[in-house]
Amino acid sequence: MRRAELIDCIQQKQSFLCVGLDPDPTLMPEEIPHDETGIRHFLQRIIEVTMPYAVAYKINTAFFEVWGASGWKLMQELLQHIPEEILVIADAKRGDIGNSASRYAAAFFSPSGGLSRVDAVTVSPYMGHDAVQPFLTYPGKWVALLALTSNRGAGDFQLKRLENGRFLFEEVIEQSQSWGSPDNLMYVAGATRPELLGKVRGLVPRHVLLVPGVGHQGGTLRQVAEMAWRPEGPLLVNMSRQILYASAQRDYAQAAARVAADAAREMSYFLKRP
Amino acid sequence: MRRAELIDCIQQKQSFLCVGLDPDPTLMPEEIPHDETGIRHFLQRIIEVTMPYAVAYKINTAFFEVWGASGWKLMQELLQHIPEEILVIADAKRGDIGNSASRYAAAFFSPSGGLSRVDAVTVSPYMGHDAVQPFLTYPGKWVALLALTSNRGAGDFQLKRLENGRFLFEEVIEQSQSWGSPDNLMYVAGATRPELLGKVRGLVPRHVLLVPGVGHQGGTLRQVAEMAWRPEGPLLVNMSRQILYASAQRDYAQAAARVAADAAREMSYFLKRP
Repeated sequence: MRRAELIDCIQQKQSFLCVGLDPDPTLMPEEIPHDETGIRHFLQRIIEVTMPYAVAYKINTAFFEVWGASGWKLMQELLQHIPEEILVIADAKRGDIGNSASRYAAAFFSPSGGLSRVDAVTVSPYMGHDAVQPFLTYPGKWVALLALTSNRGAGDFQLKRLENGRFLFEEVIEQSQSWGSPDNLMYVAGATRPELLGKVRGLVPRHVLLVPGVGHQGGTLRQVAEMAWRPEGPLLVNMSRQILYASAQRDYAQAAARVAADAAREMSYFLKRP
Repeated sequence: MRRAELIDCIQQKQSFLCVGLDPDPTLMPEEIPHDETGIRHFLQRIIEVTMPYAVAYKINTAFFEVWGASGWKLMQELLQHIPEEILVIADAKRGDIGNSASRYAAAFFSPSGGLSRVDAVTVSPYMGHDAVQPFLTYPGKWVALLALTSNRGAGDFQLKRLENGRFLFEEVIEQSQSWGSPDNLMYVAGATRPELLGKVRGLVPRHVLLVPGVGHQGGTLRQVAEMAWRPEGPLLVNMSRQILYASAQRDYAQAAARVAADAAREMSYFLKRP
């Protein structure tokens, strides 16, 4: 998907909602079987009802890999249910050197892997540019590079200051800008530290920012939008559990749609501002 | 596998060779089909003939995921061919927060995932302690934490100096030591910069070091052993392509065995030194 198409989708839906697909059987409604068949049914329903409000879906590969080969197959099948105009992010946090990185990129982007509906893969910067480059050779595909994550452990290294005075996450953003462009490189920046999210936006005014951590992990939608929404710098705010597990009863799909609609309504307010 | 068992295996085989399983069909002998069936046959033969010299096998998940669900299945099947006394490392370079990290850990370590023969998983430190902790809750299982990798891009961030004067990779080693112990935490440290490998060994005299990058990526076995072998600090030296693709002819298995035997012979010299 090209950048202009993503921006169109955001404008048309008046939303920058990314729905995270993290299927956790222990949180799914009791009536749904707690196996791959149940997950397939559950996520298909979630996709159907949130589709009007979502401009992106984020598949968390961990929650599929835990089912082994059949989880991988399930991931392939689910992708077929996502309409073409919606961005698909594989939240895989891969990161390995050239030779291996090429394989990971092919696993998600090349038609032979069965997952080529994926538009973007999350990649870890620890190993440097050669871990990222192979993903950037596919036209229309994106890297979502981890910069500042939303977990507590982000403080362990990402918030360490370098000799040059920058935080490590700032150095990652500064250096990686030359690896790609705002057309194929986006950044993951968490909502838990709004002031630092503002710092990220200052460094990359035109790049797409993918923001997890709204709600359950702290950081409100309003704070995030004020810090990181720019007319020329698209934002994707991810919500997973709040939507997927809005109700553990039979009405789970309606409840999910309601939370997604509410979020989109709040987002439209920011999109309408001059 | 417990640390004492690994040390026993190293002593018995007089070798610290880890054989990397990175199946690349374009490098396999022509007579072998360039598909999953061919790879299965090829790697089974490689395992059979290198078994006397190997104390560990390292499965590079990228080279399996590129085949989609059937690649994942292939990985499960291959693990059954590795004898119990040999350490199995899944070189997956995972790294995500608590909830997702638990799933990744279960995918490799729990019996339900089909890969529980795996003893260790490579993990990236970028997201901090909560990305690593879930892997350390399985008795007898290990994290192989990326510290200093063997690729060029290692210079981008790992070799940046922090305000406190340490390189980032040193900070990773310093901080992470409290997350686990030499019984469940090993470090990945590349062979390409032998003097820095010595620095790593100085920081963690008792931890297992997994060292890629001997041969094709530069750094000789002698240099690595001199810098990083300690009687109380086990070393695993990984060789992949040199062994797997020692010959592209019918004699590929004999050629692989020969390279593995030669490496083990050189290693035994260091093991015998006082």
